[in-house]
Amino acid sequence: MTGIFISFEGPDGAGKTTALQNLLPQLKAATDQEIVVSREPGGSPIAEKIRNIILDVNDESMDAGTEALLYAAARRQHLVDVILPTLQANKVMLSDRFVDSSIAYQGGGRQLGTKEVASINDFAIDGHLPDLTIYFDVSPEVGLSRIKKDHADQMDRLEQESIKFHQRVHDSYLKLVKENPQRIVTIDAEQAPKQVVDDALAAIKQRFPNVFNGGH
Amino acid sequence: MTGIFISFEGPDGAGKTTALQNLLPQLKAATDQEIVVSREPGGSPIAEKIRNIILDVNDESMDAGTEALLYAAARRQHLVDVILPTLQANKVMLSDRFVDSSIAYQGGGRQLGTKEVASINDFAIDGHLPDLTIYFDVSPEVGLSRIKKDHADQMDRLEQESIKFHQRVHDSYLKLVKENPQRIVTIDAEQAPKQVVDDALAAIKQRFPNVFNGGH
Repeated sequence: MTGIFISFEGPDGAGKTTALQNLLPQLKAATDQEIVVSREPGGSPIAEKIRNIILDVNDESMDAGTEALLYAAARRQHLVDVILPTLQANKVMLSDRFVDSSIAYQGGGRQLGTKEVASINDFAIDGHLPDLTIYFDVSPEVGLSRIKKDHADQMDRLEQESIKFHQRVHDSYLKLVKENPQRIVTIDAEQAPKQVVDDALAAIKQRFPNVFNGGH
Repeated sequence: MTGIFISFEGPDGAGKTTALQNLLPQLKAATDQEIVVSREPGGSPIAEKIRNIILDVNDESMDAGTEALLYAAARRQHLVDVILPTLQANKVMLSDRFVDSSIAYQGGGRQLGTKEVASINDFAIDGHLPDLTIYFDVSPEVGLSRIKKDHADQMDRLEQESIKFHQRVHDSYLKLVKENPQRIVTIDAEQAPKQVVDDALAAIKQRFPNVFNGGH
């Protein structure tokens, strides 16, 4: 494996997906290596089929344990179909969400236990953790208010969860940050959008100076 | 929990599904308790959606780890939607396949490791093992020759696997039988179909004499 694997994490409303889009041209300008962008759950045909089951608002009766196993299944297929081939080809892999999302949302948010959810994800990822994780931190209150303004009439099943759920997700992310200081870098995502992108870019350049050495 | 949970296991071509159908009227005649029959993967609306992904012959690129996680997810939902409510209502639950199938097929057949597959299934079933498992034993050769005669032109993805795969599945089942002598009863499924049904019925009556005490 010679490529670089970077995951983007954060609570709902952290703005990480938008930040990733705005960051991408600057990352491309700064490196000669090819960059592949993907997202979870999904990222490959079979993983997208699993995504459709997970996010279907009609699946109200879905058990939390089933949900956690489906996320792990989609992640496994995403890893095999997209992430590993990208790294083997010496490219840069950017994934919008990865294993930390399951630990925060299913382990913390749904209270299945972070250890238990980490265990089924160990089976799924088989040691392939990201080289760097950019964590976009936003308080549950600010995050939820952003979501409601954006698309209140079409929130998916997870976004409809209560404020307490989102507080547990946030707490679990902070715990992951504390436990993985080498891997996870925190960005203050309540700043102005341009500053968020600048901070993320700086964190990536600082971690991989030999790869992202162009641009200005 | 006051009901009884019985699973039916065996390699492809063991004839367990047919045996279960033929057994059912005799079981019903022998007890006052209501009997609920289900099958895996599937058994409830969300679990059936997951089943469709697993058994789709077009999903050739499905990773073995993904498959194992999807089986565990479908099992979790089947447990929550069907098995636990049935047992809580003091009924008899008959399931065509359960956790042993994953250990034999994914752990042994696909060589993911029986311990690893057992571990993700522990998360899924949360201690709810069957009270009794009827294992229909058939050699891989006889089992596969039966399948080919029955529906060679429409075999699903798992049935299309090689003879070596089916030998590993069979070996894993025999190991499970050895490790769980209290729970698993073996029936010789190479006998005449009527004898197979009679043996299964006798095993169930012997294990639960107070529940199956009618009929003749």
